[in-house]
Amino acid sequence: MLPEPIQQCIDAFSRLPGIGPKTAARLTFFLLRTQEGDLSIKLADALTNLLTGTDTCPDCFNMMSSNQERCRVCSNSERDQGIICVVEEPLDVAALERTSGYQGLYHVLHGALSPVEGIVPEDLKIKELLDRVQRGEIKEVIIATNPSMEGDATGMYMQQQLEAYDLKVTRLARGLPMGGDLEYADQNTLLRALMGRQEME
Amino acid sequence: MLPEPIQQCIDAFSRLPGIGPKTAARLTFFLLRTQEGDLSIKLADALTNLLTGTDTCPDCFNMMSSNQERCRVCSNSERDQGIICVVEEPLDVAALERTSGYQGLYHVLHGALSPVEGIVPEDLKIKELLDRVQRGEIKEVIIATNPSMEGDATGMYMQQQLEAYDLKVTRLARGLPMGGDLEYADQNTLLRALMGRQEME
Repeated sequence: MLPEPIQQCIDAFSRLPGIGPKTAARLTFFLLRTQEGDLSIKLADALTNLLTGTDTCPDCFNMMSSNQERCRVCSNSERDQGIICVVEEPLDVAALERTSGYQGLYHVLHGALSPVEGIVPEDLKIKELLDRVQRGEIKEVIIATNPSMEGDATGMYMQQQLEAYDLKVTRLARGLPMGGDLEYADQNTLLRALMGRQEME
Repeated sequence: MLPEPIQQCIDAFSRLPGIGPKTAARLTFFLLRTQEGDLSIKLADALTNLLTGTDTCPDCFNMMSSNQERCRVCSNSERDQGIICVVEEPLDVAALERTSGYQGLYHVLHGALSPVEGIVPEDLKIKELLDRVQRGEIKEVIIATNPSMEGDATGMYMQQQLEAYDLKVTRLARGLPMGGDLEYADQNTLLRALMGRQEME
């Protein structure tokens, strides 16, 4: 019923996660109607440039512009070259960078172990992490996988693999989130907060 | 922190309604990671084609492909040329067409009167509706604006304007939605259902 160009746009939007046909139609008609007439063109340009304009860093596998040789963190000689923080996804790097509390390097696994989804160690950048460690300059590996079943399993696996090397393996603290309410904390979080309680000085 | 091509894509997605920076980032990284490698290109093509490939029908102002002279409904001589159904948006036409229960023509207002948003009759295609009626072939105008304050006000305004012509003005029935539960129907809907009760035959 709808004209071909509109239907094609709705179909393409619908293939994105969390966007059903109704939302896709709403987005398409918003673009048709909006006063910012160039928004659909700007989005089209950004999408065209998305795959060709980006690449993964050969060292840490974080995303970088394809005209760079290494990502901004790896190419910054002021960062502590002795610590690697291992995360699942590039967005986790962005989240950690926003804290301004970490000055070391990163390593992006691009996923987590998951027997259900059939993701095994070879699907992740774990071998590449061990290669980096083997070169000998790394003093500490911080495991910053998600606090989920998959993230924990991936962390445990890496810890076993890293035991062979002379370095410290740590992981992010588990406990009550800031601004949270103890009353509403789930059982597991509260248990972890109790187990990991720290002496006050 | 993120590479330029990724940030640009996130920024463009964020300008769409209902999509915040977090959802925009999720969509962008989905496009980077998905196995359907051509999805970002397909979406980009569809967006590029969206404005240039579409136009409004000169008769009813519904959307049509820009290579057509009139929309599919207006150019179909089998449709009843004596009835016009007036709706607010092109998607309303699509919804009515899906019912397969209407064989007349349409007229798309492209909005509804709204003092709050400063939308006055001249902003809508109301004059164009009166022009169509004036040509004399129309026997009935069905007002199918949304059952909201703005939709009702727009309907009332059009009814007044149409009084000068010799034709029937009707509007869509108000009442209980199908599959609904009387217990959960809101007061207004129930009142309308009572007022508009129909004799059983």
